[in-house]
Amino acid sequence: MDLYIEKDELVRALAGIQGVVERRSTHQILGHALLTAKEDNFQVTATDTELTVITGHNARIEKPGSVSMNAGHFFQVAKFLPKGPVHIYSQDNSYVVVDAPPAHYRLMGAPMEEFPPVPPFEGSSGISVTAGGLQRMIEETIFAIPTDETRYGLNGAHLEQVGDSGSGQRIRMVATDGNRLCYSEIPFDGEFGMGEQMLLPRKVLVECRKHLVDPAAKVEITFGDRAATIEIDKALFHTRMVDGEFPPYRNVMPSSFSRKAVVDREIFQEGLIRVALEAQDRANTIKMEFSEAEVLVSARSVDHGEARHPIPIQFEGEPTKMGFNVKFFLDVLQCLRDDKLILELGEPLAPCIVKVEGRDDVCFVVMPIRLD
Amino acid sequence: MDLYIEKDELVRALAGIQGVVERRSTHQILGHALLTAKEDNFQVTATDTELTVITGHNARIEKPGSVSMNAGHFFQVAKFLPKGPVHIYSQDNSYVVVDAPPAHYRLMGAPMEEFPPVPPFEGSSGISVTAGGLQRMIEETIFAIPTDETRYGLNGAHLEQVGDSGSGQRIRMVATDGNRLCYSEIPFDGEFGMGEQMLLPRKVLVECRKHLVDPAAKVEITFGDRAATIEIDKALFHTRMVDGEFPPYRNVMPSSFSRKAVVDREIFQEGLIRVALEAQDRANTIKMEFSEAEVLVSARSVDHGEARHPIPIQFEGEPTKMGFNVKFFLDVLQCLRDDKLILELGEPLAPCIVKVEGRDDVCFVVMPIRLD
Repeated sequence: MDLYIEKDELVRALAGIQGVVERRSTHQILGHALLTAKEDNFQVTATDTELTVITGHNARIEKPGSVSMNAGHFFQVAKFLPKGPVHIYSQDNSYVVVDAPPAHYRLMGAPMEEFPPVPPFEGSSGISVTAGGLQRMIEETIFAIPTDETRYGLNGAHLEQVGDSGSGQRIRMVATDGNRLCYSEIPFDGEFGMGEQMLLPRKVLVECRKHLVDPAAKVEITFGDRAATIEIDKALFHTRMVDGEFPPYRNVMPSSFSRKAVVDREIFQEGLIRVALEAQDRANTIKMEFSEAEVLVSARSVDHGEARHPIPIQFEGEPTKMGFNVKFFLDVLQCLRDDKLILELGEPLAPCIVKVEGRDDVCFVVMPIRLD
Repeated sequence: MDLYIEKDELVRALAGIQGVVERRSTHQILGHALLTAKEDNFQVTATDTELTVITGHNARIEKPGSVSMNAGHFFQVAKFLPKGPVHIYSQDNSYVVVDAPPAHYRLMGAPMEEFPPVPPFEGSSGISVTAGGLQRMIEETIFAIPTDETRYGLNGAHLEQVGDSGSGQRIRMVATDGNRLCYSEIPFDGEFGMGEQMLLPRKVLVECRKHLVDPAAKVEITFGDRAATIEIDKALFHTRMVDGEFPPYRNVMPSSFSRKAVVDREIFQEGLIRVALEAQDRANTIKMEFSEAEVLVSARSVDHGEARHPIPIQFEGEPTKMGFNVKFFLDVLQCLRDDKLILELGEPLAPCIVKVEGRDDVCFVVMPIRLD
């Protein structure tokens, strides 16, 4: 392997895979990236065996070849190299020379044979979406996916098709941790064919998101047997699906409501952040008292004291009092950019639905907490 | 206590003492700040019993009084308050109301009697320096003070007077951890009278530094019995001195040298940062090979490989090879803003002196490491 690559391009290449490599694994090779000089481009591959990412980069290839290198260390080295072209070539025993005068490194690599092979993949159906749409859909759902991997059936994003080619077909991403739920939809082209009882792991969404820089770019998602690939510009993600039966989430969504509040998102967020400071030592519990023109939000902490904060709303229905985990609301408010939100409420222990004024492609459900 | 203070002024007041309060102490009261409304200003006091800081702030006082409050929590609350005036008043049982509509808090305080009293202080001599000078002197020495408090005689900054009122009197701050030493000097007015065998603790330097915002401002330092006060604008620091006999540091400073190198600071720093990446797993050891027009810096790590980097120098003397802890050089290079440095070298195991071209008020000594 022998190639020249611009320093900035090398840094981008290595930055893009840092989230995938496993730094703390006992398998040292999972902390590596595979560098491959092809005839006309330079590829970087990283894997944790569940998720594999391959990114392509501009480089002048002198001699094709592959070598595996510690991804974290090489990234550190690359960041401090001088601007301009970097000459990278392999030597005997998998040593790799990184030459960017006056800086010169001779780093230990590993033979490409030690690097886990990219799993075979055969796609059976595929869809095409915009990068901007996918970005929004991920932002609006990812926070509700439990980070605890033992939550069978919940530890990934559920995908399904809504509508059809006549009425406008959309892909819906749904996530829940049992106490809150959210879904978000985007239009797509192609044929949706993700297997039943399959979930998209959180990690592939986290990593994809970093590569969704140009909102207008096309993203191709291909579904295979218990696996999927996502192609964004010159990056290819290959992920195993999580096996699990997503709960029948439509059952928890109330079909009617007796109260409705319209609230300004930023004002609501500001108020909740202030009150949340006094809710920390009681599992983030806040009280919301809805009345004609305002919701009075309050919390009382054991250690520090109490907070209360009125927030103006337009309200329809009988006044009511409800308890919530304020973090669930803050997660919703932080992922949105819209101006006005609609809260649909029922009895004090019925779920609260949060919608966005003027949008039918996003919806959040927050379960209340019983007040003492 | 009853007062109105602007939100930004309140945030500044609480930010300025966060480094002094002891969050993890078993004495909960050391995590508090004492708030005092005086006739014409608002004071915030924090202490860890060794170091006490009192800062003054503009406020409209309705009713004088004092109350003690958790400093970290109140700072969090203050940061998210709306812009504009904040009404703060105490209630029965040391409750404190913080009212900044629409935000409203009722926080638990503690009676001022529970807050540790400010130690009595009688000054016997004092000096006056500029804030900019003090800032520079601290930057150029603080990194060499051991953070390990058990290092008797080294765990603080040594101060002494050099020159006299005829030739120009300066205060010299000296710090060493046994492997490196640095001193920096600034002119002063007044009478220097710090006790023998006394060191200024690291923490008061760290905290003072945050308040040295206007370089032209005057700073008054007063010395008393085993204690000192430092007054910067509206902030007063009262610190106990560390008891300890500073080593006779002049003995380690070679009076002559056989080799001299002049180097550009930024180029030197860039090169050392790059090589340091391969020195991490060998106690940061790098090799420097000095020859006529360059110093070749190199390191070899057990885990990753090796780095080498030539740095242009003007050199006088016989070529030589020396080993150093690269971190000691990087600390020196990071605290300076000057263009050119002078390295004075002797035999491979003699200390290296680092000076700044055109300045006689700063000097660094770095002990070499024996190369294998």
